[in-house]
Amino acid sequence: MSKKLFIPGPIDVSQDVLNCMATQVIGHRSEESSKLQEEISLKLQKVLYTKNTILLSTSSGTGLMEGSIRSCTSKRAAVFSCGSFGDRWYKIGVSNMVPVDLFKVELGQAISPEMVDKVLSTGKYDLITITHNETSTGIRNPIEAIGEVIKKYDDVIYCVDAVSSAGGMKIEVDKIGIDICITSVQKALGLPPGMAICTFSKKAVQRAKTVPYRGTYFDLLSIYKYIVDKNYQYPSTPSLSHMFALNFQLDQILKEGLDNRFLRHENMAKTVRNWAEDHFQIFTNKNYLSNTLTVIENTKKISISKLNEKLIDRGFEIANGYGELKEKTFRISHMGDYTVEDVVDLLNNINEILEL
Amino acid sequence: MSKKLFIPGPIDVSQDVLNCMATQVIGHRSEESSKLQEEISLKLQKVLYTKNTILLSTSSGTGLMEGSIRSCTSKRAAVFSCGSFGDRWYKIGVSNMVPVDLFKVELGQAISPEMVDKVLSTGKYDLITITHNETSTGIRNPIEAIGEVIKKYDDVIYCVDAVSSAGGMKIEVDKIGIDICITSVQKALGLPPGMAICTFSKKAVQRAKTVPYRGTYFDLLSIYKYIVDKNYQYPSTPSLSHMFALNFQLDQILKEGLDNRFLRHENMAKTVRNWAEDHFQIFTNKNYLSNTLTVIENTKKISISKLNEKLIDRGFEIANGYGELKEKTFRISHMGDYTVEDVVDLLNNINEILEL
Repeated sequence: MSKKLFIPGPIDVSQDVLNCMATQVIGHRSEESSKLQEEISLKLQKVLYTKNTILLSTSSGTGLMEGSIRSCTSKRAAVFSCGSFGDRWYKIGVSNMVPVDLFKVELGQAISPEMVDKVLSTGKYDLITITHNETSTGIRNPIEAIGEVIKKYDDVIYCVDAVSSAGGMKIEVDKIGIDICITSVQKALGLPPGMAICTFSKKAVQRAKTVPYRGTYFDLLSIYKYIVDKNYQYPSTPSLSHMFALNFQLDQILKEGLDNRFLRHENMAKTVRNWAEDHFQIFTNKNYLSNTLTVIENTKKISISKLNEKLIDRGFEIANGYGELKEKTFRISHMGDYTVEDVVDLLNNINEILEL
Repeated sequence: MSKKLFIPGPIDVSQDVLNCMATQVIGHRSEESSKLQEEISLKLQKVLYTKNTILLSTSSGTGLMEGSIRSCTSKRAAVFSCGSFGDRWYKIGVSNMVPVDLFKVELGQAISPEMVDKVLSTGKYDLITITHNETSTGIRNPIEAIGEVIKKYDDVIYCVDAVSSAGGMKIEVDKIGIDICITSVQKALGLPPGMAICTFSKKAVQRAKTVPYRGTYFDLLSIYKYIVDKNYQYPSTPSLSHMFALNFQLDQILKEGLDNRFLRHENMAKTVRNWAEDHFQIFTNKNYLSNTLTVIENTKKISISKLNEKLIDRGFEIANGYGELKEKTFRISHMGDYTVEDVVDLLNNINEILEL
């Protein structure tokens, strides 16, 4: 049986988009293929409010996190983490011998612009990473205010992991001054997993040129050059199926209207938050709540695994807490093409199971 | 219009397989997802004649080439190249600061076991790479005889790029002694591009444990551990669509019968070779001909680009020569689910266009 997935990705995909995944393949060196990537790029530039180049990667978002920290750190990277996906940046840096330091805040709290300023003022760092939407704690970090701080430091490349927010929350890449904004298609963009996306600024291009060992598959400069020098080509063979589906889904997203889409996500979030406040407690600092997922403290000490088993029997699935927050919290995502009605339906089912 | 692609990948995919790409997604941490990867693994072990662990990667084959040379070179890698895809291994090694040397033969010639023996006898190397089926020249390297040589050297990891051959040509991984055999789904396996596969021997596992900086996304040891320790899970979110389609297509392949499938590829190859001998000349050393693609010398000095334009108008597409062999050669692939009749149909169309 197909379940309605309210886990923080992958999420259910609309039938129209799934059908595009079944498009017959085309030659990846053809003009048709260039045209496809060009169309996708132009549409993604709208969704991400940027004129920067859009890079596609046949991988999960983790691949582009690796590509960015590796391709663009010259001196030293500062990783700011408020949870597991922030920590991942650090592990990626270390595993690639990138000089990197980790700056953490307590789980459930956000990264502050002041903290970033203090770290950057040491002059040791020329790249920073921030998780926009920390999927383990439900924090939406203040990337706009952090962007203002970074504008003081000319040589710092600003990388943002927007894997679980882009397409569901407004991210004005150029206005904020993000050099590399990374996302993945299986979250708020509403596609099956298998492709990641990032924006790539001129400043990031110049930086990458100074980094000698960038690897091959995730060498962002190489992906960039195939677009610029070879008319929207891709260094290796990409997942054309995802490109067909992404091109179609971006039309649907723009047809819905970006503001409408962001508002729908906000309304879904409010619905879940109200329910959480009524019956449990929101885990996350309320000044920094994500609109694409809500992390709820398990104040009733129920078994989250058992709740999920019963939900699965009813055709729904939510997510347990991530890592050390397992059973202490649970996570409900509200992203992609779901509506407030879908969310209410899920919550009613939880109410019935828990007799709330 | 959909074309019949006779380029060396991607190739046309059967409608049944395309339909599987449109399967609704499931949670990638679910038991269902583990079961899916386990089923795929068991079937791939049959196709590749191995008991070694099967690793999947949401990427092109290049990603796993990078993963293998980076994860498993401790002392120094010896790359043997007879064309562009052999050279790619070397570039990958260099871009990752892996100590690596390149040993080349003339285009159209094969790597000899003697050459490998001479290089390994220096004692400098603990990993070697061989391209089984060099897509730029049509060479099928003698991986079996090379395997016999490598058996003399206990500490050498044997990596084979079988991207354009596995599923169309018999590769007895365990009998030959291949530690890492890499392929990609969009070639002879007959799927849309977006997923790569490799086998991973116990010896390769032990070696990877001694290599400190293996990166993250293509760290083969990490992919291996998720399979072994977490019951066929995957470190990041994989392309579930490709996994659904691969699982189905492997059933089709096993239903056809491996020997029948290899024979069909051989018969397609013979058909193209006979035609090439009648009208042009085979570019490749005839002792080492691939069964999945044929590289033909442009002895008539026709314009390959123009021939292809006319073929495209008729619903077919072949490939120009690769790199420096462009216009000097052209390439016809015969892999995946095509039949001898499809190949004859293509050749008749070329005959009509060129008035042969």
